[in-house]
Amino acid sequence: MSVDLATPCLVVDVERLESNIARMAASATSRSLRLRPHAKTHKSPEIARRQIAAGARGLTVATVSEAELFADAGFEDLFLAYPIFATAAIGQRLRGLLERADVRIGVDSVESARALAAQLDDDHRQRLHVLVEVDSGQHRSGVRPDDAGELAVGVARAGLEVLGVFTFPGHSYAPDGRQAAADQEAEALDRAATALTEQGIEPLVISGGSTPSVDLVRAGAMTEMRPGVYVFGDAQQWELGTTPPEAIALTCLATVVSHAGGNLVLDSGSKALGADRAAWATGYGRLLDYPEARITLLAEHHAVVAWPDRLPRPERGSRLRVVPNHVCIAVNLTHELLAFSEGELVDRWPVAAQGANT
Amino acid sequence: MSVDLATPCLVVDVERLESNIARMAASATSRSLRLRPHAKTHKSPEIARRQIAAGARGLTVATVSEAELFADAGFEDLFLAYPIFATAAIGQRLRGLLERADVRIGVDSVESARALAAQLDDDHRQRLHVLVEVDSGQHRSGVRPDDAGELAVGVARAGLEVLGVFTFPGHSYAPDGRQAAADQEAEALDRAATALTEQGIEPLVISGGSTPSVDLVRAGAMTEMRPGVYVFGDAQQWELGTTPPEAIALTCLATVVSHAGGNLVLDSGSKALGADRAAWATGYGRLLDYPEARITLLAEHHAVVAWPDRLPRPERGSRLRVVPNHVCIAVNLTHELLAFSEGELVDRWPVAAQGANT
Repeated sequence: MSVDLATPCLVVDVERLESNIARMAASATSRSLRLRPHAKTHKSPEIARRQIAAGARGLTVATVSEAELFADAGFEDLFLAYPIFATAAIGQRLRGLLERADVRIGVDSVESARALAAQLDDDHRQRLHVLVEVDSGQHRSGVRPDDAGELAVGVARAGLEVLGVFTFPGHSYAPDGRQAAADQEAEALDRAATALTEQGIEPLVISGGSTPSVDLVRAGAMTEMRPGVYVFGDAQQWELGTTPPEAIALTCLATVVSHAGGNLVLDSGSKALGADRAAWATGYGRLLDYPEARITLLAEHHAVVAWPDRLPRPERGSRLRVVPNHVCIAVNLTHELLAFSEGELVDRWPVAAQGANT
Repeated sequence: MSVDLATPCLVVDVERLESNIARMAASATSRSLRLRPHAKTHKSPEIARRQIAAGARGLTVATVSEAELFADAGFEDLFLAYPIFATAAIGQRLRGLLERADVRIGVDSVESARALAAQLDDDHRQRLHVLVEVDSGQHRSGVRPDDAGELAVGVARAGLEVLGVFTFPGHSYAPDGRQAAADQEAEALDRAATALTEQGIEPLVISGGSTPSVDLVRAGAMTEMRPGVYVFGDAQQWELGTTPPEAIALTCLATVVSHAGGNLVLDSGSKALGADRAAWATGYGRLLDYPEARITLLAEHHAVVAWPDRLPRPERGSRLRVVPNHVCIAVNLTHELLAFSEGELVDRWPVAAQGANT
């Protein structure tokens, strides 16, 4: 990295990225699971293309605008894993999307299904496929698994086709809770699929999976998995034990700007790293090459690092590689990812869906 | 707000904004202080122009790229309140800036001053003015006040002109600590200014001020104040008691997308609001029109609201006004601010410096 890069900036190690992509694809194949990675992590068509090339089938997105950007980039199989509430403007955008991609969408209430159906004509209604969202323990959105059958019937009565069920086990982001969350996820999906079957609706798609839980879910629990973070890894995954530091493919290159108070102060603040800090996290981010160091204070443009006493303190002007706590947030704060291969800057990948929240 | 706005989006109440700008300008004038608002809060030339029109003199910025964007927009008096470490690339950009604006810059070490001076020729060195940064208790960057004199001498020996001292009392963001932080700020600035004087360097500028502390600092403690958040207010300021809810000028318009678990789920997640949550904050953001409600769980695209039992729960599809915890972060996550006057959308202001971290 001899280039005088403007810091902070996000740097991707292409070899590690490819390795992470291949490993997850192999994990899905070995279990006969369809891999539909969540594109909200990278927001980048360049990386989505590599995922598809490695065997992923389709993408998951979180917002209509993410769906639009990936459809514009040529991705034709998209799952909008979010309980969209369709206004007239959203309806118009969904109709546009359905003209150029296969679209699945999440629904967690009959009311939302009706609002959605009201925005579509017969032709578009037949093209749109619904996955009923169930809550497997995160308590964010989704119905109870046993209520999935009733909801599916309501969605069908609203005129939309139900393809199956999905969940996101977000509570798997816990150091001692990964296996329990994976078990709850499997049980929730199983009960929800059964509830659909009991109503005469065949659950063709049973979709789950988060980076921390995906390797722990029992065989047969799902037909599709949707991890996102695995492409890069981050400090949360490092601390959860799902991504060893040598597999972390994205870092924030930062400059030491101050030695105030005997600490290191880096220019990678919360406007570069994001302010996510789970209760169990040991800091606001880690240093890839100094695992003992911790970011103890994070301001918008300052990351204050408590530096291990036994190590010489890097000079002002030094560049260090910071691992953000939550990589999806860090990526969304910048406009391009600098792709490095064997130590050389080989490409700049636009974060095409940066800020695509609507 | 009858327009079918795509949510989440940031909405500015122009009357409240103008009132906040006028109030802070009057506060500065009444104390014969120069007001140099921090533009990192709004990142918007449209709002900076209103601040200058109301009497602010110059702007504060946090990064070279913010300085460049505001210089390009015609602002010619900029204080880069950050301990920049000047590489060759930064040096080139600073020389460009000095061609089109008066630039002051923060320095907290002789090493950084030397790196800065090494990038400038005699002409540019004479145009650049340095403010020595002192730590008034946040322990982020800056030297101890008593060391400011020695640092100022070192900066002068490096060939740069020292104009004065500055601090940021970030520890004023504490419910019971505002007055104490303001007192420490005043004392730190006083000692630092004295330390400069003792070295024969006249402290022409003594600069401080954060939104929570600026009204509490004793008369004569500074010549200039640099609050930022006051233009909008946010949930932190609401809870600190510095901005009453009726003065909050920016909200995130969000849609109710789910009633899962008996809660409200809004589409304003951490990619719209930011994930900042101080230890003393009561949640991840507030609802302007429902002060009893709290955001208890925040994911990238979900804000789960614990809804007060005694109130009817808004229907799915309803629009609510969310007050972000930290407005500077929320603004940096979007590309435009929707300006509303008397309930009508009157303008869209670009967040010109969105993502300008370098």
